Amino acid sequence: MLIEKKITDFLEDLASDLPAPGGGGAAALAGAMGACLISMVARLTIGKKGYEAVEVQMRDILSRSDQLYQQLTVQVDEDAAAFNEVIAAMKLPKANETEAGIRTEAMQKSFRRAAEVPYKAAVNCKEVLDLAAEIASGCNTNVSSDVGVAAELAWAGLQSSLLNVKINLPYLKDEEYVLSMRRQLAFLIESAGTSKEKALNVVSLQIQ
Amino acid sequence: MLIEKKITDFLEDLASDLPAPGGGGAAALAGAMGACLISMVARLTIGKKGYEAVEVQMRDILSRSDQLYQQLTVQVDEDAAAFNEVIAAMKLPKANETEAGIRTEAMQKSFRRAAEVPYKAAVNCKEVLDLAAEIASGCNTNVSSDVGVAAELAWAGLQSSLLNVKINLPYLKDEEYVLSMRRQLAFLIESAGTSKEKALNVVSLQIQ
Repeated sequence: MLIEKKITDFLEDLASDLPAPGGGGAAALAGAMGACLISMVARLTIGKKGYEAVEVQMRDILSRSDQLYQQLTVQVDEDAAAFNEVIAAMKLPKANETEAGIRTEAMQKSFRRAAEVPYKAAVNCKEVLDLAAEIASGCNTNVSSDVGVAAELAWAGLQSSLLNVKINLPYLKDEEYVLSMRRQLAFLIESAGTSKEKALNVVSLQIQ
Repeated sequence: MLIEKKITDFLEDLASDLPAPGGGGAAALAGAMGACLISMVARLTIGKKGYEAVEVQMRDILSRSDQLYQQLTVQVDEDAAAFNEVIAAMKLPKANETEAGIRTEAMQKSFRRAAEVPYKAAVNCKEVLDLAAEIASGCNTNVSSDVGVAAELAWAGLQSSLLNVKINLPYLKDEEYVLSMRRQLAFLIESAGTSKEKALNVVSLQIQ
């Protein structure tokens, strides 16, 4: 598994011409780091003098951010698996009509999965941004910068994941699915943008 | 060293209340991933049919992106070291005037380093964005999305690093240094923004 690798080895593989990891995995990992920082900020607020009133809220945020970071971590490898599936489908034989039909079906299935894995990562990154917006105004002000970093990384993870969804859509023949996915992407980016601005506006009042 | 850790262990530490890693390290790692993706794109363009004309340029970009990824990787640990230096300086005794003077000097030195380490990471992220702008228009179009991801990650690394510079500036007594640093930050963000837009504009023509 990619996420069991040492950071230095993962980066070396990312910089290489190996089929994986690529941009999709890096996007999920950026989102995972964003979620981790929300968890860190929650942990550094819980139990601190002066923050008793937000303790219940912080515990709730922490349980959600821990879950998001675990999911995004898993998505680093899911992205690689989805890409490998596309490659495998492309290599299927197409000597006759039956083979060609099986190959086409396998390719459609694999491209759809290759779009859905980064879509799920993008949804998770959007939820990290929601948590950043929520935590920004109540958390320990000593770690405001980490809320800002969480928002920046989750935003990059989201935008990068969307690119990885979009590169697969032109290969899909199911036009209704593609149209519906494009609508969901537009909704996601708008909603996530609102949360990002909200989080960074609070941070920018504390860090000038 | 943090970068010798497994990714899962690094993320667990990032999510914890340990003093390091924090937002500064995560920022440098995001920038490193951006640089790695530039290297990957260059490697997947060099030697490919139809891209002979850009081979020399790609080799030049590759040598610069490999260097940037190495530097940003080192900065993950430098950030942690700088933070630990601040903590150590704060813990110095201040029972008398002599001790207080030594402590103040050590703290000033450590805060300055804590600003300079993320500043250097921000400069490196800006250079990754310059490379993204340069590589976008000539590279293998099969990996356009990875150029986009590289730009998004380097931008997040830059913005996040700048937050980590800014949180340390209010503690510095050398007003001239602070003013000069703020001017450099403003220049950096403007220049990096231009490269980011340039890269993403090309990518958005290829991925819709």
